[in-house]
Amino acid sequence: MRFSQVYKNIVLDSSFENWKKMIDHYHQLNKAHLLMLHKCRILPDDVVFKIATGLKKLQNEKVKELPENVEDLVLLFEKKLGDLIGEDVAGFLHTARSRNDIDATIFRMALRNVLIQFEKELLNLIKQFIRKAGQNIDTVFLLYTHGQPAQPSSFAHYLLAFSGELTQVSKKLIETFDIVNECPMGAGAITTTGFSIDRNLVSNYLGFNRPLENSYQAISTSHWITLPGALLRNLMIDITRFIQDIMHKSSSEVGVLQFPNELVQISSIMPQKRNPVVLEHLRLRANMAANAFSNIENVFLNVPYQDVNENGDFVLREFLNAMDISNQVLILLSEMVEKVIVRTDRVREIAAQFGATSTELADELVRRFGISFRKAHLIVSEVVKTGLNFENFSNVIKEHLKEKPEMEINPEEFQHILSCEHFIEIRKVLGGPEKSSIISMINKLENPIIQHEQFIESFEKQIATSFENLNHDFNLLLL
Amino acid sequence: MRFSQVYKNIVLDSSFENWKKMIDHYHQLNKAHLLMLHKCRILPDDVVFKIATGLKKLQNEKVKELPENVEDLVLLFEKKLGDLIGEDVAGFLHTARSRNDIDATIFRMALRNVLIQFEKELLNLIKQFIRKAGQNIDTVFLLYTHGQPAQPSSFAHYLLAFSGELTQVSKKLIETFDIVNECPMGAGAITTTGFSIDRNLVSNYLGFNRPLENSYQAISTSHWITLPGALLRNLMIDITRFIQDIMHKSSSEVGVLQFPNELVQISSIMPQKRNPVVLEHLRLRANMAANAFSNIENVFLNVPYQDVNENGDFVLREFLNAMDISNQVLILLSEMVEKVIVRTDRVREIAAQFGATSTELADELVRRFGISFRKAHLIVSEVVKTGLNFENFSNVIKEHLKEKPEMEINPEEFQHILSCEHFIEIRKVLGGPEKSSIISMINKLENPIIQHEQFIESFEKQIATSFENLNHDFNLLLL
Amino acid sequence: MRFSQVYKNIVLDSSFENWKKMIDHYHQLNKAHLLMLHKCRILPDDVVFKIATGLKKLQNEKVKELPENVEDLVLLFEKKLGDLIGEDVAGFLHTARSRNDIDATIFRMALRNVLIQFEKELLNLIKQFIRKAGQNIDTVFLLYTHGQPAQPSSFAHYLLAFSGELTQVSKKLIETFDIVNECPMGAGAITTTGFSIDRNLVSNYLGFNRPLENSYQAISTSHWITLPGALLRNLMIDITRFIQDIMHKSSSEVGVLQFPNELVQISSIMPQKRNPVVLEHLRLRANMAANAFSNIENVFLNVPYQDVNENGDFVLREFLNAMDISNQVLILLSEMVEKVIVRTDRVREIAAQFGATSTELADELVRRFGISFRKAHLIVSEVVKTGLNFENFSNVIKEHLKEKPEMEINPEEFQHILSCEHFIEIRKVLGGPEKSSIISMINKLENPIIQHEQFIESFEKQIATSFENLNHDFNLLLL
Amino acid sequence: MRFSQVYKNIVLDSSFENWKKMIDHYHQLNKAHLLMLHKCRILPDDVVFKIATGLKKLQNEKVKELPENVEDLVLLFEKKLGDLIGEDVAGFLHTARSRNDIDATIFRMALRNVLIQFEKELLNLIKQFIRKAGQNIDTVFLLYTHGQPAQPSSFAHYLLAFSGELTQVSKKLIETFDIVNECPMGAGAITTTGFSIDRNLVSNYLGFNRPLENSYQAISTSHWITLPGALLRNLMIDITRFIQDIMHKSSSEVGVLQFPNELVQISSIMPQKRNPVVLEHLRLRANMAANAFSNIENVFLNVPYQDVNENGDFVLREFLNAMDISNQVLILLSEMVEKVIVRTDRVREIAAQFGATSTELADELVRRFGISFRKAHLIVSEVVKTGLNFENFSNVIKEHLKEKPEMEINPEEFQHILSCEHFIEIRKVLGGPEKSSIISMINKLENPIIQHEQFIESFEKQIATSFENLNHDFNLLLL
Repeated sequence: MRFSQVYKNIVLDSSFENWKKMIDHYHQLNKAHLLMLHKCRILPDDVVFKIATGLKKLQNEKVKELPENVEDLVLLFEKKLGDLIGEDVAGFLHTARSRNDIDATIFRMALRNVLIQFEKELLNLIKQFIRKAGQNIDTVFLLYTHGQPAQPSSFAHYLLAFSGELTQVSKKLIETFDIVNECPMGAGAITTTGFSIDRNLVSNYLGFNRPLENSYQAISTSHWITLPGALLRNLMIDITRFIQDIMHKSSSEVGVLQFPNELVQISSIMPQKRNPVVLEHLRLRANMAANAFSNIENVFLNVPYQDVNENGDFVLREFLNAMDISNQVLILLSEMVEKVIVRTDRVREIAAQFGATSTELADELVRRFGISFRKAHLIVSEVVKTGLNFENFSNVIKEHLKEKPEMEINPEEFQHILSCEHFIEIRKVLGGPEKSSIISMINKLENPIIQHEQFIESFEKQIATSFENLNHDFNLLLL
Repeated sequence: MRFSQVYKNIVLDSSFENWKKMIDHYHQLNKAHLLMLHKCRILPDDVVFKIATGLKKLQNEKVKELPENVEDLVLLFEKKLGDLIGEDVAGFLHTARSRNDIDATIFRMALRNVLIQFEKELLNLIKQFIRKAGQNIDTVFLLYTHGQPAQPSSFAHYLLAFSGELTQVSKKLIETFDIVNECPMGAGAITTTGFSIDRNLVSNYLGFNRPLENSYQAISTSHWITLPGALLRNLMIDITRFIQDIMHKSSSEVGVLQFPNELVQISSIMPQKRNPVVLEHLRLRANMAANAFSNIENVFLNVPYQDVNENGDFVLREFLNAMDISNQVLILLSEMVEKVIVRTDRVREIAAQFGATSTELADELVRRFGISFRKAHLIVSEVVKTGLNFENFSNVIKEHLKEKPEMEINPEEFQHILSCEHFIEIRKVLGGPEKSSIISMINKLENPIIQHEQFIESFEKQIATSFENLNHDFNLLLL
Repeated sequence: MRFSQVYKNIVLDSSFENWKKMIDHYHQLNKAHLLMLHKCRILPDDVVFKIATGLKKLQNEKVKELPENVEDLVLLFEKKLGDLIGEDVAGFLHTARSRNDIDATIFRMALRNVLIQFEKELLNLIKQFIRKAGQNIDTVFLLYTHGQPAQPSSFAHYLLAFSGELTQVSKKLIETFDIVNECPMGAGAITTTGFSIDRNLVSNYLGFNRPLENSYQAISTSHWITLPGALLRNLMIDITRFIQDIMHKSSSEVGVLQFPNELVQISSIMPQKRNPVVLEHLRLRANMAANAFSNIENVFLNVPYQDVNENGDFVLREFLNAMDISNQVLILLSEMVEKVIVRTDRVREIAAQFGATSTELADELVRRFGISFRKAHLIVSEVVKTGLNFENFSNVIKEHLKEKPEMEINPEEFQHILSCEHFIEIRKVLGGPEKSSIISMINKLENPIIQHEQFIESFEKQIATSFENLNHDFNLLLL
Repeated sequence: MRFSQVYKNIVLDSSFENWKKMIDHYHQLNKAHLLMLHKCRILPDDVVFKIATGLKKLQNEKVKELPENVEDLVLLFEKKLGDLIGEDVAGFLHTARSRNDIDATIFRMALRNVLIQFEKELLNLIKQFIRKAGQNIDTVFLLYTHGQPAQPSSFAHYLLAFSGELTQVSKKLIETFDIVNECPMGAGAITTTGFSIDRNLVSNYLGFNRPLENSYQAISTSHWITLPGALLRNLMIDITRFIQDIMHKSSSEVGVLQFPNELVQISSIMPQKRNPVVLEHLRLRANMAANAFSNIENVFLNVPYQDVNENGDFVLREFLNAMDISNQVLILLSEMVEKVIVRTDRVREIAAQFGATSTELADELVRRFGISFRKAHLIVSEVVKTGLNFENFSNVIKEHLKEKPEMEINPEEFQHILSCEHFIEIRKVLGGPEKSSIISMINKLENPIIQHEQFIESFEKQIATSFENLNHDFNLLLL
């Protein structure tokens, strides 16, 4: 036995399991590398033909366990290739490459696939938010500051705020694809190779944007995983914030939001309880995922800038686990947004109880009576303290304004000024809750969504076309 | 006494100290808001004139301590303004705005200034790296993988790898400026206002790119601080990696790097010791800063998505502290890069001792003898085990290659093949260590640096011009 | 100039500032070390006398700035001592010691002082909790699960739960004192010394429990700072949890808790709002502190286990800053607990509205009618759905229990069963809300508090007595 | 379908999988609770008998998937019990308990089992360290400060330092068992119950130390998982430090440590390389685990202090995963310590090259010539600079000491003073490297190990005996 049993069990076997999931990328990389060696005239034609034949046969070979005395899946495949076409010929495939650039390339191929799927799910979520907003332009809602009811708005306004956050992350995440999708192949162990390889060729065949130029950076950098990770972490923390807000709004006492039975659990002993624990599950999953992405960055703390195993399959596995949880978060959140119901009666009740529209009364005093905002604020504060009704209002006004104002407010106007509808309608300012502002925001948000969808589409197409070329050219080798 | 003494000491006074540092931004914001109220005809001209006069006088007012019964610096200034021009008139200034949008705007003004200075320092650092690389294109160096000497390269190649990392962060950091530099003013408490304000006007006067549209997002989002923070964290972790690498290379036993006396401390009892503790100080500062940026994100975990104090001056202060430490890191690192010396004699010694060039010997066997890389690798491994000299080489070759090869290797060639110079020269591939590859990399890196510098220049100009306009228009009010 | 200007400004000057705050510990250490060298007959009597005289004079010497060409405060003092008594004689003081063991010892002296003060504040806080609990044994309160009102209890029950958490941390924190208070002196640089020193003597003079035996561990370990840090982190996270709970309970809509005006801020534009932002300030400070303690652990990630600067004054400074914030958290929290008011009317209102006592009705059905809990639960669920009143109850009962039960429930009993008082009174089980259970819990909690107070008292006494001995014996040297 | 399909797939099914692994604990808990209800005369005998019979039958029932319309495994089992003995009778089992106290109890039972196994592995590791130390009392080794060779010592001294760290964690970890092993059962949902239950009975049957008294704390506290987690995190960070140190010492250029082939991997293209990547795998696993434990604490940040799902099976699962990785770390580290080889020739070589023993020469000058340490340090520094040999030494001495000293040093003495052996032998101080000090340290370390082993043994016995009693008494119910 070549390796310590403990080492094999804990390290080699676990790495083998991780690699098995990435085996297709390895097959593609082998083809691309062989094609390049062929086109650059580094290997003789007969060798190329034999290797191509062998690779073709191995393509559907299943591997289950790592045999004793074989270090890893790559060496296992090299061995199998040797069994098929002779060890000597098989040995030519590793010309001008190294485990380092192979690893770095395959890990990026695995990551980019998962990132694409995630970005699609994120776009779905944003569209769900915007759709729900579109359905709730006129749905009166209540916004809070410091946990206290503050001012009325529309549910659309609320949802669009968070849509804006999600869209920013979507944009930034897509921008990291350019970093993830650089091709390390050709970097060799760290200094490229003395053979006249063409790194662009391999990069193109594998769907990358370009080779990652500096060969030392190519195998040492952590940016391919830490930069998307930082954004995913930010997104997950944003989501904990949104959920925590939703939890408050759907608590028994607040109750401006409600969930259907299919998202509610009951207590095993308290007959009266309806727990929207879906929210807690969302919160904790988003939280765990956020922390897990943080780990991926921490794991590089004080790790020498050179080829290191922190850049390897173990860390990638944990990252993909975190992405899996994050994906669940997006799906659950989308379900939740789709099904949540606003109880506008309760919104109005709380708004009235806590005088949520009284800012507008103060503003109106400024407009009508020409008094300063501070003074108007003071007057309304006194009204609020004694009870927000017309009688109290009239009394306080009399006291503060010695002369009878020209533009008096009558009881109907008083009610109108304090209504949620008026409060919203009058806020026509850019970014405010009034209908036209909301529609303008929805229209503006749809643009980036379309752009991001188009980006993903063309990015997937780029990869698909590359692989078609790869397979086409590889098959020519077999003729 | 209005507030609990404990509350005043711990919360209000500390907040007051933080605000004092941002007082200039507050003055500018007041002017811009007043101008907007004037241009939008929300306040009568005489009121505007009186307030303008008052603001002018207050501009150089010094405040030291927060008086009893005053909540914060903003209310203190409003009070002082009232003392000057009458409480009633002063009270008009707060029309159509709120503490929420004031806070959010001022914090962004404070942050963007610090980010600009930081980005400049970062660009200085990158230029230092590139300059040093330019001076060391021919300086032979040794690259490591997994902590073991691997292959020779040039010191330039090594420095450019990390320059690439720094440049990516620089680019991403600059991209976040567009998020930081959106203007919350006009969002009011959360739902804008019923007055017909013009948010673009205030945004322009204060040097922002545009208003942050959705008014709820404007006061709830954490992205203005967490998105730059995530990149700074990544940068600081990258630097711990680079430092850890440099520490290894400048350790007594490795010794391929050396520092002048001015960066070295001696032991108080071990006469023989020269400790480059500057590296440890760099490592720990970068580490502390990285963690501090992580905190800024963590502090938002599970915090409801609404107006919250986590978005306030206390967190900003900690963020600016972390940026201060990060700035020290950049400066120390630049000093270190400038002054570090490569000991090429030691590089060659280690390269020879550990056969760092033997990959190239294997490659040459492939080229000359037409054998597979695996076989060549096997042959060279055997030579390495017995001692990497010509005699051993000849013996192993004889054993493995039954027929005498056509393109035999003579002793001089053997030495040449194994030399560091040859190893580097033959690696002409894109991104490799050979001179022309290096020069090409330097040229390509200079482009983004120039772009980033131009960006910063025009960004600063945008802000400066805005303030000029602001002051010009404000002075017109006083005529 | 000996050092790089950049290095001096960023590293040496900052370190000097940190050291200035610890100068008293350094004086004490010098005295203790000199006494030991004297008692162990390592230095001749005349040398000891001269050094003692010099140290006495330097004791009140103020230092402001680090002069050029001097590395740090320790060397500055050695220089000053040399100026006083001659360099040759002064040089004897450093016999059998090193900067490493001096640093490690002084940092622990600084930390233990701060930990003692913190522990006292923590005990004050716990006593505040218990006092408030004692005042609220009969104050009806509402407990929540998953953010929804669940069951009534007493406010005392609620406060004692968290008192239990605090007491556990207090106990664990005190247990770490035994690790913090081991004395590194005598470890030298790492391997002790060839002089026949007596490490116990120095340890005793400086108030330590014992020497930290293994000399390599003495200068490499991080446990002195990371083990207390981990507990402080746990405590701060616990406090964020408690605050988040209190925030919910004092929100406008829930309102079972209320704060006096001195802890409440008002909105600048919303006249109706009363924001208990003290809670947000508490939450974010606790959060920041928790994260800062986490940093102190992270900073050691992947740092070689040997003498390193991560164990130095920069990290200690950040730790003490975090303790300072934590201290503020304890004080603010104590203030908050002292002044918070329970609105029992609102408690009863919510309890009635959401049927918080209905579990007890189900339990009573089990007792009286001998039906299973699941069945009783089902019956009460139906009643709750239709409205929790006697009429509905009677109807549902009739439907489910075909035969008329022996122990019928009359309307008065029905009301009594559903009352908060009954709910609490009947829960006499160990750890439950009923009065005798509460009193028993209070009594049990008082025990550890007394023990911890006694521990701190005797710990402080141990240190004070040690310093008395130190000064007494040192003065004998001067005779 | 009762639940949203998305909710079922992501939340309920995942929770079901976690619960399946804890099913045995649930069976035991059911038995204990039934016995208590019986002994407290809360259920009639015939009901008890029927339930007991049903539980017995269900004990070996396998469950695979969660059926539609069933929320979780507990309700599934209740349903199965109903099928066996009638729903009405089955419903009695849930008397005086709740899902909350069931969950909290079972999670602690799961955790304590894993903690016991972990503690055993930790003790194995410490014993491995001590055993290796015992074998290397005379093995000369080199200690470093700030990454530079400092002073010679024995390998035992080095290993015992870290053994001391491990033993501290072992002690603290065992101390947390008292917190983990408190029994929440009887807390009900949060306020205990109105039935006269005996919480001690259930606690005893299930092997707990005692009931966790305050019923609200019982279901809200996170200490059962965060307090052990904090220590495991500390341990894992300690291990990253040790590994980072070992990596440096086993790097090619330092080479004082060496690993056998079974722990070394080779490069795929660099024939000369031997990578002890086991160390990197250890480092990154320890790092990932440390971060994962940190997550478990972070997940509670700002989570209201009440019953929450953060205290649930999802978080527990991640914790147990982290413990699994930590366990691998202990095993790999033990393997590594067992098999590592000290190259004493290389130790001596480096010691000589870098003058690692020169402190001792300075000390000897102090002893012999009565000069101050600073002066001796200065003299030796000059010798070191010119080359540490007798001739240089004599010249420098002559220059500095005008009069010929009485106790001259001859060439043989000079060599002896500078030898590693002498350096070690003369350091007889408590905690130093000399043989008797080392043996004393080993003896002292063996004590706590024995105590900890005895603790674990008796703790396991306590649990085993409890279950024996439980099964014995339960079987009596069936008679």
